[in-house]
Amino acid sequence: MRDFSNDHRWLSINTATVRRQRGVDWPLLEILDACAARGIPAVSPWRDQVAAAGLDATARSLRGHGIELSGYCRGGMFTYSDAASRQAVRDDNRRALDEACTLNAPCLVLVVGGLPGALSGKPAHRDIAGAREQVAEGIAALLDDARPRGMPLAIEPLHPMYAAERACVNTLRQALDLCDQLDPAHDDGPPALGVAVDVYHVWWDPELQQQIERAGRRRLLAFHVSDWLVPTTDMLNDRGMMGDGVIHLPRLRGWVEDAGFAGYSEVELFSNRWWQHDGGEVLDTCIARHRSAV
Amino acid sequence: MRDFSNDHRWLSINTATVRRQRGVDWPLLEILDACAARGIPAVSPWRDQVAAAGLDATARSLRGHGIELSGYCRGGMFTYSDAASRQAVRDDNRRALDEACTLNAPCLVLVVGGLPGALSGKPAHRDIAGAREQVAEGIAALLDDARPRGMPLAIEPLHPMYAAERACVNTLRQALDLCDQLDPAHDDGPPALGVAVDVYHVWWDPELQQQIERAGRRRLLAFHVSDWLVPTTDMLNDRGMMGDGVIHLPRLRGWVEDAGFAGYSEVELFSNRWWQHDGGEVLDTCIARHRSAV
Repeated sequence: MRDFSNDHRWLSINTATVRRQRGVDWPLLEILDACAARGIPAVSPWRDQVAAAGLDATARSLRGHGIELSGYCRGGMFTYSDAASRQAVRDDNRRALDEACTLNAPCLVLVVGGLPGALSGKPAHRDIAGAREQVAEGIAALLDDARPRGMPLAIEPLHPMYAAERACVNTLRQALDLCDQLDPAHDDGPPALGVAVDVYHVWWDPELQQQIERAGRRRLLAFHVSDWLVPTTDMLNDRGMMGDGVIHLPRLRGWVEDAGFAGYSEVELFSNRWWQHDGGEVLDTCIARHRSAV
Repeated sequence: MRDFSNDHRWLSINTATVRRQRGVDWPLLEILDACAARGIPAVSPWRDQVAAAGLDATARSLRGHGIELSGYCRGGMFTYSDAASRQAVRDDNRRALDEACTLNAPCLVLVVGGLPGALSGKPAHRDIAGAREQVAEGIAALLDDARPRGMPLAIEPLHPMYAAERACVNTLRQALDLCDQLDPAHDDGPPALGVAVDVYHVWWDPELQQQIERAGRRRLLAFHVSDWLVPTTDMLNDRGMMGDGVIHLPRLRGWVEDAGFAGYSEVELFSNRWWQHDGGEVLDTCIARHRSAV
């Protein structure tokens, strides 16, 4: 297992972690400057932040600072309740793919969507099996566009508590079954479809070690860290800083590295608490915890 | 699949559903009277409610009303951080077993426990695999007491969002693996160990139908219903009344009945919202939804 204790060359910051500071939005270009000032070598930006900063300006800033991407957040939300929204979803995912290519991302992360309408409190139906079929169709269609452009797609299984509203792919086993179905393994060539393993979503899974082994180097496209707090007071925005919760981070990192993963450890932390702090202080804390707790 | 639309002969009320009315505790003996008045044939009481009412008084009331049990809530919490708490857990589970026998319960439901100390906000460690080993040991020890008394134990897998604090058994597959390990199947004889399937905990599971089939009649000891609301505003006490959320209840009931389950459909609903209502009104709503939505 790599030694993280002496430097932070393998640290990436998911920019949602510092999307707000002291309760107000922190613009992406300022975030990139602050990361560069601290020698943080990689980020994973969100589309809304990139749109606010401008795609070209973001690309220029990344190049200027020599900051890499560990992923691009995000495509997906494949489930739909009518033909118009189906087409809108496809168009939007093509735009996400374009942006990922422009930013030279190593993968486009997919949050696949839940029951259509549920995120806005108006679920169109209760058929989660049907939603899962739409997800498989949506990924297959996006793969047709992504393969020729050499942009890998990373399915991120989300915690089961998000099954209704955000993602009906909820375990690593299920995500890997989709990978095997839609992108059967080849011995050579880069992966077209893999997974993003976020410890917050999967730490509880009794099959986690086994499924990480199954994924192997080829399917492991991203590794996200944060921590699970006890108690957790908000289902969406109460993630903990690494070391403050109950996830055995070194054990999980050991499993992904044993399986061949050698990429960035990306801090993705949605937290009403940390969004109240100074952004620079949060980045400094991420660096310290990356060294001591991951 | 049984027709529930014309009567409620297969309805059971988990008494936590009405443990409070208009915001204050509703005593168990009054709950039993209210159930009897509505022709509700079964309940599943919680130990603290029974302790407050008195075990013998509860048994007398049940006999007097001719109300059956669909389960007894609950044993478990097997994880420990020292020898003294390990012994305390064993003693407490033996008492739960005694009470279940006195009340003529069809099974003792087990919520197995999470990381020791986590429920009180002070997790002793991050080793969920170790906690799972303690759970297996704890169930094995309790089985030694339960088998000769003919009291089946029902492992209830809890939603993964409760893995840290309440139960590190989080899928039906995992619960059934434990059953197979600790109580290998026999062709004859009553089951010693099985599962309680609560739709709130397992509805999201992509393997649910397959694992219910695997469980079969012998392992399916209890079936609990409520609903998953969107949005869910509290991780513990915001369950929905059947029909108000996104769980496809008839589909899930069809699966357990196809597997051979022919017992009560038990309403278990922890809800700050419903606890503010009149208890009789809640029971009437349970009856109506049992007929229309389950």
